[in-house]
Formats: sequence, C-alpha cells, structure tokens
Amino acid sequence: MNIIHFIQAGGTIDKDYLTDDDHRAYNFVIGDPAYRSITDRAEIPYPVGFTMACQKDSSDMDDQDRDTIRRIASEVAEDKIIITHGTDTLHVTAKHLADISGKVIVLTGALKPERLRDSDADFNLGMAVGAIQCLPAGVYIALCGELKRWDEYIPRSPPSLSE
Amino acid sequence: MNIIHFIQAGGTIDKDYLTDDDHRAYNFVIGDPAYRSITDRAEIPYPVGFTMACQKDSSDMDDQDRDTIRRIASEVAEDKIIITHGTDTLHVTAKHLADISGKVIVLTGALKPERLRDSDADFNLGMAVGAIQCLPAGVYIALCGELKRWDEYIPRSPPSLSE
Amino acid sequence: MNIIHFIQAGGTIDKDYLTDDDHRAYNFVIGDPAYRSITDRAEIPYPVGFTMACQKDSSDMDDQDRDTIRRIASEVAEDKIIITHGTDTLHVTAKHLADISGKVIVLTGALKPERLRDSDADFNLGMAVGAIQCLPAGVYIALCGELKRWDEYIPRSPPSLSE
Amino acid sequence: MNIIHFIQAGGTIDKDYLTDDDHRAYNFVIGDPAYRSITDRAEIPYPVGFTMACQKDSSDMDDQDRDTIRRIASEVAEDKIIITHGTDTLHVTAKHLADISGKVIVLTGALKPERLRDSDADFNLGMAVGAIQCLPAGVYIALCGELKRWDEYIPRSPPSLSE
Repeated sequence: MNIIHFIQAGGTIDKDYLTDDDHRAYNFVIGDPAYRSITDRAEIPYPVGFTMACQKDSSDMDDQDRDTIRRIASEVAEDKIIITHGTDTLHVTAKHLADISGKVIVLTGALKPERLRDSDADFNLGMAVGAIQCLPAGVYIALCGELKRWDEYIPRSPPSLSE
Repeated sequence: MNIIHFIQAGGTIDKDYLTDDDHRAYNFVIGDPAYRSITDRAEIPYPVGFTMACQKDSSDMDDQDRDTIRRIASEVAEDKIIITHGTDTLHVTAKHLADISGKVIVLTGALKPERLRDSDADFNLGMAVGAIQCLPAGVYIALCGELKRWDEYIPRSPPSLSE
Repeated sequence: MNIIHFIQAGGTIDKDYLTDDDHRAYNFVIGDPAYRSITDRAEIPYPVGFTMACQKDSSDMDDQDRDTIRRIASEVAEDKIIITHGTDTLHVTAKHLADISGKVIVLTGALKPERLRDSDADFNLGMAVGAIQCLPAGVYIALCGELKRWDEYIPRSPPSLSE
Repeated sequence: MNIIHFIQAGGTIDKDYLTDDDHRAYNFVIGDPAYRSITDRAEIPYPVGFTMACQKDSSDMDDQDRDTIRRIASEVAEDKIIITHGTDTLHVTAKHLADISGKVIVLTGALKPERLRDSDADFNLGMAVGAIQCLPAGVYIALCGELKRWDEYIPRSPPSLSE
C-alpha cells in the first residue's frame, strides 16, 4: 500500500531544458515530475503513488485544473497527498481543496527547478514529506522553510507572470 | 529571535574533500556544517542559531560528546533543535536526549555528503525543518523519508565502521 | 598578463533562473558569464580577461553583435580568445572572425545551462581551454567532444528558435 | 572505430561514496570511471574505448601498474589515449609512457571527485578531449587549466599521502 500519493500540477520545480514540441527548439519546459529524482536520491523505502493532474505554470492554471486536483486527491486510496505545484498560486489551489476531509494534503514547489545545481526543490519536498507524517487532516503549504496551514499562508510576493 | 537552533555533531552529511590538517593531503573530512548551504539554497527567511558540538563520525562519538549535545540542546533559548549527525548512532544520541522537556528535537543526517551531486542531505534536512514545526515536544529522527519518534526508530543496518 | 581573454556573446550556457527585469517574474535569462564559475571550480592559476559583447540567444544576434565581437577579439592584447556563445549560430560568428590574424580563437557554448546539474558547460569550456593551448592561429569551434576548424564544423541540427 | 581510448588508473576523479567491500561500511572508494558520466553529459557523438588498468590513489601505484598502463596504451588500436589518474604522480606515469610512438597520450585527473557538486573533473576531461584532437604524438598532462608536455609539467605541490 502506498504511503504517500504525489500529484503533479507543474510549476518551476519540474522545469527542465528540453526540446519544446511546438518549436523543436531547446527551451525550459515542465517535464518529468521532480519528486521522482528527489525520492530516489533520498532512498525512500516505501511505495508511493503518482498522478499527473496537469503540467502548467500555476498562473496558467484554471478552475478545471483545480477541480482535477481535488478529484484526484479525494479519490485516491492514500490519506497523505503531496502536490508539487507552481509557487504563485499554491494558496488558490489549497483553498480549493480545503473541504476534503480525512486527508493530510501538503502543497509544495520550488523557486528554482530541481534540475538546477542550487535548487531548493529537494529541501521543500523533504519539508512536505517530513510534515505530512506529523500533521492532522487538513491542507498545508510547505515552502522556503515554512510550514503553514493553507489559511495562514502568506504568499511571498504578488502573483508573477510565469511561475 | 531564532526559530530553530542547529547543532553539528558531524557525520557523512558534512563531509567534504579538503586538505586534512594532519597530512596536508586532500581527504574527505568533516567540515563546515551542511545546514548552512542547504538553508541558503532554501531561502529560509527566519533567523537560526548554531552551535558546533563536535565533528565526528558517529561511530567515533562517546558519552562526552553526547553530554555536550544534551547540554547545548537544554540550554539554548530556542525550543526547536535540529541536530545534524552521523546516521549510525542517531538512536543512541536520541536516547541520550530523551529526558529533555519542553523542546522539539529532531536528529537527521545523510547517507551521502551534502557536497555530492546526488546527496540526500537537502531532503533530509527539509524533513527535519518541516516536521519540527508540527511536532509536540520530544525527540525524533528524520531520515530516508521516515519521521519517527526516537524510541520507534529502527536503524537501517548494523553500525558500520566509518559513519 | 592575461593568458586567455573570454568574450561573452550569450546563449544557453549562461542561462539562469532569475528575475526578469521586464516582468519581475522568475524566468530563465542570460546572466553572469558561466566561464567564471567554471574556471573557479577548475582552480585555474593564471589571470584571464573578460569582455561582455552581448547577452543574446544566438538566433537573436545580428551583424552588429558580430562586429562587436570581432572588434573586441582584434583589439585585446591576448592572442588566445574564447567566446562563449549560443550553439545555433557558432559557425556564423566564426566565419565573421575568420580574417583576424595572429590569434587563436575558439568558440564554445553548451546545450544545457551551466546552472543545470547535468550540464555540458564545464566540459565544453574545458575543451576550449585545452585546445587553445595547442592550436595555431585561426578560428575553431569546440562543442560536444568535437574540436573543428570553423570551416570544417557541421552544425548539429537546423537553427532552432531559442538558442 | 573508436576515436579515443580511455584508461582508468584511479585517483580522486573516480572517488564516490559507496560501500567499502572490506568493511561493508560507507566510505569514499574509487568506483566507476568518471569519464563515462562526463562524456554522457557532454553528448559525445563518437564511440570510445575503455580499459581499466587499476583503481588506485596514485601514491599507491607501483611500476607494475605503470607497466600495465603502458602495455594497454601501446596495444590498443586507437592513437588517441586519455588516462584518468590521481593527480599526485601524473608526471611519474607520464614519464613511463614517453617512449611510446605514434600516439597522442593525455593524462588528466581532478582535485575533487566528479561526484562532487563543484568538481573540476568535467573541465579537466574536457581539456584532455579538446587538446587530444590538436596535438602531435607525445605524452601530455592536462590539469587546472594547463596543458603541458609531460617533461614541462610542474606538479602543483609535493606528493601528498592520499591522492
């Protein structure tokens, strides 16, 4: 039985320098979910589940995407959910999940892609994985060293254009 | 006021390839505490404190080192303490701290030095920082994706010779 | 006296995830020249010079930029020049420099930014620094393990849109 | 047909944090040859050959090891040989190969293991790969930004104890 279910929404954390299908040019695009590399490095011994909800900058997400995330989070068997997400609208998605009961849901992301040398991705995902084992049911945000209930989270800066 | 106090015991997490004072040769020695680079990358916005207790492989630690750690943990103002430590005897040190009251103490370390490309150090420290904000007073161990109370922690393998 | 003069034209090698001045958003923009971090890591013991010619994707470069590079390369005192450049139009810029005499000029770049964990940047710059000490005056391209005279270089793929 | 033949002698460049067979403990031991990861990252398009001569700190190498390297270098079909080696006795091995004719042989290594975040390994191997395509037959050393004929190479510091 999976201990944690990961949901990919997208965001900077998953950006890599790849061929962009549209242009056949190299560009930074949201690719494979970073949680995979990170949990491999961390040598996590227990099984986890995964669903890709979308692969978007969070400022490009809409209610349909948030409904998808809510549906997945509600329906999977696991009661521990970590959502990797763009950092700009973590709180918007979090609010959208607030009525889910019986689950510990932690949203996280990164200011720098996991593919970058000095990324905060590993640390933030670690925060989520550590906190999720201690928290009561509810929705939380883990970012930049802070672990907050969704309704106590203060976004770092005004929503920006491509995160 | 500092939010978390970090204590360095040593261990693999802090190993770097440096000149070894004794031999003027390059070798892997325990150096600057890894929490510093990690929390810089994570862009932690709050102040933290730090004390170096020792810089040893945990299989080389003795009761005197553990007394030092306990003294520091008891005496600092902060009620949240993260100890970076070799992974072999985390549970031994944890037990030594079990009688400290009014503090949340999380011990962590890494299987690979923070200086390595594919280290688990950032993730594990993230686990400690995330969990410490959710846990009641007590002593815990965060490693390889698992967050356990010290008396429920099962070491991964028999104590080895140089960790 | 400087041994090598580095010229920054831009390209993927120098892309980092930074605030974009226009949008105050985090985005991948050409930043500090990667040769600096790379030569620091390599512990190069001799002094080098540097001039920033432009900071562009090479498909955005025009003749004015190439004239600038040619002027710098011609006028600096050093007879060894390394130009870090986008990979798409290395050969175009190389041709533009072909009439400079008395200098060894090596153009290089990277398919992945130096800031990425698995970048080819260090290797390519190493190729340029190694080759430049062995080559007679002329213009060369060093990329992906191949060291070619500019007029023998075959670009890897058709010019793409953002490199 | 292979363009370059790599020979592994060992040294810091290939050190990784692995289980040590003798002790079943984690320790830094010479493991897989670093040239493999490095040339993969560099997306080298041509085939290369490889032979493991030994996996030793260069201060532990003896004449038998050097004879092995000389035999391999002489006998392989390729006329371009790169030897990854500990940095302390590069010049000793180089001298041992000086009588081989018709081959370009470049010895290189690194001050920090390729597995370290800020390693010079990629850069140094790049130097060797770049230079080897420009040099006449002979034996050379590429390290820390300097490309020298073996008999003009000045070791950085007195032979140390574990490199």
